[in-house]
Amino acid sequence: MIPSRIIETKRDGGVVGRADLEAFLDGYLRGSVPDYQMAAFLMAAYFRGMDDGEAEVLVRAMLDSGAVLDLSGLDGPRVDKHSTGGVGDKVSLALAPLAAAAGLYVPMMSGRGLAHTTGTLDKLEAFPGFRTELSLGEFKDVLARVGCAMMGQTAEIAPLDRRLYALRDVTATVPVIPLIAASIMSKKLAEDLTGLVLDVKVGSGAFVPAEERALSLASTMVEIGEARGLPTVALLTAMDRPLGLAVGNALETAEAVACLRSGGPPDLRELVLAEATEMLRAGFPGTSEAEARLSAENTLDGGHALERLARLVEAQGGDPTVIDEPRRFATAPERAEVRAEQDGTVLAVDPLPLGQAVATLGGGRRRLGEPIHLGVGFQLAVAPGDRVRTGDLLGTVHALDGAGSALGSGVLRRAVRVGEGVPDLRPLLSHRVSAGGVTRY
Amino acid sequence: MIPSRIIETKRDGGVVGRADLEAFLDGYLRGSVPDYQMAAFLMAAYFRGMDDGEAEVLVRAMLDSGAVLDLSGLDGPRVDKHSTGGVGDKVSLALAPLAAAAGLYVPMMSGRGLAHTTGTLDKLEAFPGFRTELSLGEFKDVLARVGCAMMGQTAEIAPLDRRLYALRDVTATVPVIPLIAASIMSKKLAEDLTGLVLDVKVGSGAFVPAEERALSLASTMVEIGEARGLPTVALLTAMDRPLGLAVGNALETAEAVACLRSGGPPDLRELVLAEATEMLRAGFPGTSEAEARLSAENTLDGGHALERLARLVEAQGGDPTVIDEPRRFATAPERAEVRAEQDGTVLAVDPLPLGQAVATLGGGRRRLGEPIHLGVGFQLAVAPGDRVRTGDLLGTVHALDGAGSALGSGVLRRAVRVGEGVPDLRPLLSHRVSAGGVTRY
Repeated sequence: MIPSRIIETKRDGGVVGRADLEAFLDGYLRGSVPDYQMAAFLMAAYFRGMDDGEAEVLVRAMLDSGAVLDLSGLDGPRVDKHSTGGVGDKVSLALAPLAAAAGLYVPMMSGRGLAHTTGTLDKLEAFPGFRTELSLGEFKDVLARVGCAMMGQTAEIAPLDRRLYALRDVTATVPVIPLIAASIMSKKLAEDLTGLVLDVKVGSGAFVPAEERALSLASTMVEIGEARGLPTVALLTAMDRPLGLAVGNALETAEAVACLRSGGPPDLRELVLAEATEMLRAGFPGTSEAEARLSAENTLDGGHALERLARLVEAQGGDPTVIDEPRRFATAPERAEVRAEQDGTVLAVDPLPLGQAVATLGGGRRRLGEPIHLGVGFQLAVAPGDRVRTGDLLGTVHALDGAGSALGSGVLRRAVRVGEGVPDLRPLLSHRVSAGGVTRY
Repeated sequence: MIPSRIIETKRDGGVVGRADLEAFLDGYLRGSVPDYQMAAFLMAAYFRGMDDGEAEVLVRAMLDSGAVLDLSGLDGPRVDKHSTGGVGDKVSLALAPLAAAAGLYVPMMSGRGLAHTTGTLDKLEAFPGFRTELSLGEFKDVLARVGCAMMGQTAEIAPLDRRLYALRDVTATVPVIPLIAASIMSKKLAEDLTGLVLDVKVGSGAFVPAEERALSLASTMVEIGEARGLPTVALLTAMDRPLGLAVGNALETAEAVACLRSGGPPDLRELVLAEATEMLRAGFPGTSEAEARLSAENTLDGGHALERLARLVEAQGGDPTVIDEPRRFATAPERAEVRAEQDGTVLAVDPLPLGQAVATLGGGRRRLGEPIHLGVGFQLAVAPGDRVRTGDLLGTVHALDGAGSALGSGVLRRAVRVGEGVPDLRPLLSHRVSAGGVTRY
């Protein structure tokens, strides 16, 4: 294996042979292939892509580079859900306890906030005392007792993915579909699952905004999962507006709790139920869609999911009484209300600037390990399609100081577009991708 | 300047602003931009190219990174010639003394053999004792006394180019026209010339085989030279067959000497005279092409160029008496003759395998500093278009041992294609590229 030949093959649009690609990745792990050769390869892959065989080799190398969970001792199906990330996406917080309460084991390894998105781990830390840094032993223990457990990715899982991601981040080679797919799937495959549901966001607030590319990402991930014997289903869901009405860590946690009380915004409830339905179908083969949906609804509306969240919070060191006293969630001291300046219909709520502003307001990190303020963000009062009159509340900015609330007000005012007409929105759920192919909702 | 943004701009086909590119290159020189970010940038440039402005910034950064000659004390025009490299290309060896004898100063900094091509420095070392590693002071002294001087590129000239070239070599980013052009021109601009002639090879034995890309390379180099006030002319010349009949270091030196005795193959003589004509026109503005050509021919056929070569060899520590006793050039012990196996016309002589075989036979380096055997190579007896009969000599292999001569014989037999028909050859000189545009010969 001559590294420059591997790069040349990719550069010229060829397919790198299995043995060569394995040796190249192994050399990178061991240090005989330096970062600069990998960087050139990644940029060539940006322009030329990678085929399914190459992606499969990459996933296996990532998996083999680290530890893999063994959850075979659990007495039930093990199903996780992963979202490619969007603005206001607090689904996991409600979904994991719901799926656990409905009979699944949910070993969820999540990430921190990244770029314009908040992270599940940060939202969990809105419960005072909640520990997301567990050992693998603690994680398995919580999982066995509660049915779900939540932690960050450990250094033991897929270290090759961590190294590649860090390199991609500084060489403008992040947006490469097969690399994104391999990165996600290597971590999910390490969870020793019996089923996986993927939520692939589409629209301006997603990391892969274009539908065609999002579909390609979904298909690549499904193929990777199925090729390794993991039944995998991907749903394409709308990210041309925020999900729900809360954008910002603690605000989103509170909204997820409201959802588990059968309240909260209807789009959040619908997505939680749809994904729970898919998880149950994956975990219990032979279950019809209607049966799975009914089970999910009963579990949610019977309060079992909320009760399971409380057990999870307690099991991971957090204070579950906050669930009943949402005012005790972290808050930001400054509030600013933004009101409609004309009558009309809310035509659009632009997710990207809202997500970016959360980071600017102190709710996102520039580098790993930075402390963040969980209370900042936006509580929207309207969604696209709502009619408003001059002076109606559009939303509230939660900020650390006056400067933040002024900045946030401007962002919110520009993000909510009011006018005459009908919003041009994506359907909340547009496509379902599985081993059987792509179907439209 | 954020390096990943620079890479992203190039990746997305944008133009990197002057100040940003300067800061990026400066950061690379100082170490704040690591090799992996430069490697990603170079691969993006492979796919997206660089515009004239970017190439100009790159050339200036390369020049400014090191020393530049000051030859303004010389009492005549300073004109050099550079070839992009091909098989059997020994033009410089005859051309430099010829141009010097005709009244020019020729400060020629050359390279070693690279890939399938031999290098001028190696050919000069076929003269016993010849020193190519001069200090800049010695170089200027020889130049002032003899009118021409030949040395390798020193570490003092364009160190940024050396670092970039080393990185390109191992990241499959060598064949990028603006990078090749900037690399060549940064070194030529450091020679403090008043005129420059470029020989851009086209055809299967060239580093840039396709005519369109070779023309682009020629134009880019002419633009770079002219933009910095250096009158520059590029000739596109044929490399779909070897130049002349000798391929291999000492064999080529002997052929260049034969050319200076008004002998040798006609294509070599024609190219030497054509390039000398261009150099004289560049050095003495106002001289007509006919006058320059006549001057070149008279200098060559009057023996003045040969006499100048002897002075050059002596000035740089070599033994000039070898010029009159060509048998004292380095030789290889084994010879093998390859003869025609059928009557017919020589339809093609494939340059690339012959050039590669010289390296395999011990006449080329795998890494810098390796000793090589100057005597190995091929002495062709035929050129495309020649009629041969069964048993006629096609050429002689010069090798170190029986295995080498067997290998060389096979290569030579396959490289010389005999059959019925007319060879489909490029014209020896096809295009002339200058500030005035492109003209065909």
